[in-house]
Amino acid sequence: MSVYTAPLKDIRFVMNELAGLAEVARLPGYADATPDTVDAILEEAGKFASGVLDPLNHTGDEEGSQWKDGAVKTPKGFKEAYRQYVEGGWGALPFGPEHGGQGLPKLVATAVEEMLTSANMAFSLCPLLTQGAIHALELAGSDALKQAYLENMIAGKWTGTMNLTEPQAGSDLALVRSKAVREGDHYRISGQKIFITYGEHDLAENIVHLVLARTPDAPEGVKGISLFIVPKFMVKPDGSLGERNGAKCASIEHKLGIHASPTAVMVYENAVGYLVGEENKGLSYMFIMMNAARFSVGLEGVAIAERAFQRALAYAKERLQGRDLAGGGTVAIIKHPDVRRMLMLMKSQTEAARALAYVVAGALDAASRHPDAKLRAQNQAFVDLMIPVVKGWSTETGIDVASLGVQVHGGMGFIEETGAAQHLRDARITTIYEGTTGIQANDLIGRKIAREGGATAKAWLQHLKGFDAELAKSSNADVKAIRTALSAGAAAVGESIDYIVANAGKDVMAAFAGAVPFLKLMGIVAGGWQMARAALAAEKKLGSGDKAFYAAKIATARFYADQVLVQAPSLRDTIIHGASAVMSVPEDSMLAA
Amino acid sequence: MSVYTAPLKDIRFVMNELAGLAEVARLPGYADATPDTVDAILEEAGKFASGVLDPLNHTGDEEGSQWKDGAVKTPKGFKEAYRQYVEGGWGALPFGPEHGGQGLPKLVATAVEEMLTSANMAFSLCPLLTQGAIHALELAGSDALKQAYLENMIAGKWTGTMNLTEPQAGSDLALVRSKAVREGDHYRISGQKIFITYGEHDLAENIVHLVLARTPDAPEGVKGISLFIVPKFMVKPDGSLGERNGAKCASIEHKLGIHASPTAVMVYENAVGYLVGEENKGLSYMFIMMNAARFSVGLEGVAIAERAFQRALAYAKERLQGRDLAGGGTVAIIKHPDVRRMLMLMKSQTEAARALAYVVAGALDAASRHPDAKLRAQNQAFVDLMIPVVKGWSTETGIDVASLGVQVHGGMGFIEETGAAQHLRDARITTIYEGTTGIQANDLIGRKIAREGGATAKAWLQHLKGFDAELAKSSNADVKAIRTALSAGAAAVGESIDYIVANAGKDVMAAFAGAVPFLKLMGIVAGGWQMARAALAAEKKLGSGDKAFYAAKIATARFYADQVLVQAPSLRDTIIHGASAVMSVPEDSMLAA
Repeated sequence: MSVYTAPLKDIRFVMNELAGLAEVARLPGYADATPDTVDAILEEAGKFASGVLDPLNHTGDEEGSQWKDGAVKTPKGFKEAYRQYVEGGWGALPFGPEHGGQGLPKLVATAVEEMLTSANMAFSLCPLLTQGAIHALELAGSDALKQAYLENMIAGKWTGTMNLTEPQAGSDLALVRSKAVREGDHYRISGQKIFITYGEHDLAENIVHLVLARTPDAPEGVKGISLFIVPKFMVKPDGSLGERNGAKCASIEHKLGIHASPTAVMVYENAVGYLVGEENKGLSYMFIMMNAARFSVGLEGVAIAERAFQRALAYAKERLQGRDLAGGGTVAIIKHPDVRRMLMLMKSQTEAARALAYVVAGALDAASRHPDAKLRAQNQAFVDLMIPVVKGWSTETGIDVASLGVQVHGGMGFIEETGAAQHLRDARITTIYEGTTGIQANDLIGRKIAREGGATAKAWLQHLKGFDAELAKSSNADVKAIRTALSAGAAAVGESIDYIVANAGKDVMAAFAGAVPFLKLMGIVAGGWQMARAALAAEKKLGSGDKAFYAAKIATARFYADQVLVQAPSLRDTIIHGASAVMSVPEDSMLAA
Repeated sequence: MSVYTAPLKDIRFVMNELAGLAEVARLPGYADATPDTVDAILEEAGKFASGVLDPLNHTGDEEGSQWKDGAVKTPKGFKEAYRQYVEGGWGALPFGPEHGGQGLPKLVATAVEEMLTSANMAFSLCPLLTQGAIHALELAGSDALKQAYLENMIAGKWTGTMNLTEPQAGSDLALVRSKAVREGDHYRISGQKIFITYGEHDLAENIVHLVLARTPDAPEGVKGISLFIVPKFMVKPDGSLGERNGAKCASIEHKLGIHASPTAVMVYENAVGYLVGEENKGLSYMFIMMNAARFSVGLEGVAIAERAFQRALAYAKERLQGRDLAGGGTVAIIKHPDVRRMLMLMKSQTEAARALAYVVAGALDAASRHPDAKLRAQNQAFVDLMIPVVKGWSTETGIDVASLGVQVHGGMGFIEETGAAQHLRDARITTIYEGTTGIQANDLIGRKIAREGGATAKAWLQHLKGFDAELAKSSNADVKAIRTALSAGAAAVGESIDYIVANAGKDVMAAFAGAVPFLKLMGIVAGGWQMARAALAAEKKLGSGDKAFYAAKIATARFYADQVLVQAPSLRDTIIHGASAVMSVPEDSMLAA
């Protein structure tokens, strides 16, 4: 059996060389993020992930969370693991010290989040949703609500949920029907919510539900949605827990993956709820929070990819089968070029997606903390552009990588005991929840490209031009090849942006038909940009320190250029020339039966 | 819930316009394959698939086959469905009349096989393996063995299995250890076999195992493997069943998919076995049979893709969510360009893969029955070239299509009750069993391309040149665009073949590092060739008959050209320039931990 090992070498390299940890640590309020502290955190997180969470991943999948009479029992070991999670203060990492947080940069929290998710994605969803709820409260909650809830939530004593979806309202929140009726200082919430991650469980003493609902006189559509806090147990003025609120778990779903994570159908019957922020502004709070949630799901793609890669690598090194093409007897399958190709596809895409995600995390820190308002705005624009890419591309990549992991295992990959299949099953939700890849892509070309005439994306391409000049200085053959591929990729992005900007106004279907291919193109090129930066940084360090790591980084970046970045021109052609046939088969002619 | 509908319009179009059913019916022995008979068979098969097998697909997956004390209970309804399968004579379709077969062309049997597999892949595996065992007996069995076994197997009264794999011997059959010791007119077989599909079940009264094993004095490696028949129950001289043989099912696997299909661990303890053919020639018999088995697994890719497409299409038509980009209120999601793009990717790739598979089936008929030896040889060479493509590319495509099917469903796709996830789980084995995609690709470039200097593949490219001249005559704008894409695709194949032929001798690792990308390139271009043929045939028929179908076929071929064929140049670049980095990260530097 493969055991998860935190990829600390790569994580440190990416944080230091690509995401600018030193600069992030100089931002106001992040003085605690010294190299020593960060190192210690990464080491400890790696140990917790490998030692506590990873051993529960397969057993948690097999047992699953179980529903009975409204209560949910998590799999064996999850309660104790969660206790250790709280004790370790892991939930407090990225939050401000006002309510007990550790005030560390997003960049550091990102590395920790990746490790915990690699080790046990189903477990990690409970903290993930809690963080989302904390963000919502920090963002828009009244002081009284913050006072009553934040400290216990940040400490992890209470967990949080996000209640958006209803059976008729998935991606389309305009269709939300849940009701909220004012009653003095609170509201009464009624309605049904589905797909509520950790909507009910036995890990913590209280669950704080954030619920989208409509007041009776609210306008129709998305402009009439308000956000409420609905605790499972009422919180008394002294902070102790009171009566059970009218928030019940009616059932949990039977899902393809993340079996240990209970996905609840929640029924609210006259439940007491407290308005967060103002009435009818629920969706705008959600939108701001969504960036964080989408980023985290993108990171799940990285995390699952890493875990699937490690499992496949371990198997490929030990499984003896077939003769060496280069001559000789039976060898471990890692010697076979196609197995190596699959492993390199896994490794290179995982590293590219990690690098992009961490760079965006660093930009998030700068966007919120940089003293220079212009730089804050620039970083925020970059973050806004890249979040749908991190979400959409990293998760699509995560599924591909997990599927390659099954393939490397051959027949054993199809047997559940092996563990490779679980990664594929778990990964399969990541391109769906928090907005499907299609939704991310529409957001990318609609809100992020077309609306501003491609300004931010073109600024990024301009930056790539400058970077190209740096690459040009290298005499390394691999760096030269990477430069050529990245330059072609950047050109493909530029031409695609011009096409989208030109067409989004006059032929909206034609522009949006290429939305997902464009998102993939952006991901591949942005990942290639990071791999090129990595190669350049590694080249400069080749003479010192961990030569094997730096040489592998350059070779991995070269592989990525040859086998992944190379897809960019085809994607451009699909975006620019492929729209006409997308809608041309009438609905009634689709089935040739 | 979506109900499977046999895509008879497309199946008939492909059989008649692309695979040459009329020519096939003129081959010696196929006189019964008149248009009316074939039509009736297709209609009946469609009804059996939709009415009997499809309703058991989800319940069969949920319940799974259950092992207890050596016996296997198939899911509820499977016994009765199998009884109807036997009663309908479906198993006898492609076999000669000497032992009760119906003697119909492979092309007709292929269409039937597709439908049964679409409706219930787990069920279809029992007949599939039986057919493999029948082929082996027909090919190499003594008259006595044929007499004793074939009639009951062709009738479906007895089923068959293929016992190749052992824990240490997966793709690498040189490592087979099972023993066969001669004892008079039979042998005693001992050993353990794994991954034995329908190795034990309750559908039929006897199971005929075909087992690879070594005699005591056999040479090492693949040259010392012999093939044996080992019946579950001994067959008495009068044909009645006797004692239980020493072939026991020790357990069945807990798998990602095809839950209803029992995958057995078989233990042979001194079991009575009968030599098939000659000693030490087992692998050569296997190799000949493998073409049929690999073709069938390729067809599973088509079948699952069709089923996944139909389910996604039905959902996309009924699920209301989001506003029409073209203006208006809430619409069914099929109106959204990205959903339509996904459905068209599903539809176009399924149709392309079906067309290629059926064309190969027609060529198989010509290869075995054509009166002209030269044409038999030409068809056999084409079949040999294309079988790894049908197996490898159609199954990889099947997985992609099934995964798109999950995506179209959004959150509901992740819920098992929906059924979309099952198709992905079921499909996931198809790129693994009967030789992984990597094995197919190595076979393709090693045995089929490099060994003969690319002769057959180049003959095919020559044929494409002639076809290009036909395409050039069309003034249809879609056909023009298809022609351009196909021509670029063919050029990419040609350049890749030149590279492989040039390098397979001198830099074997470099050639084989691109094996799977080359297999994908071949599949994409061969599928594009068929879609181009389909478009041309449809264009000629536009004025007559089912105009909507023909117009949809042209539009689907155009979509395929724009969004699938367009990948060909990138694949060529990966094959030709991408090999150097594949092996360049040392094994010990792969993990950056």
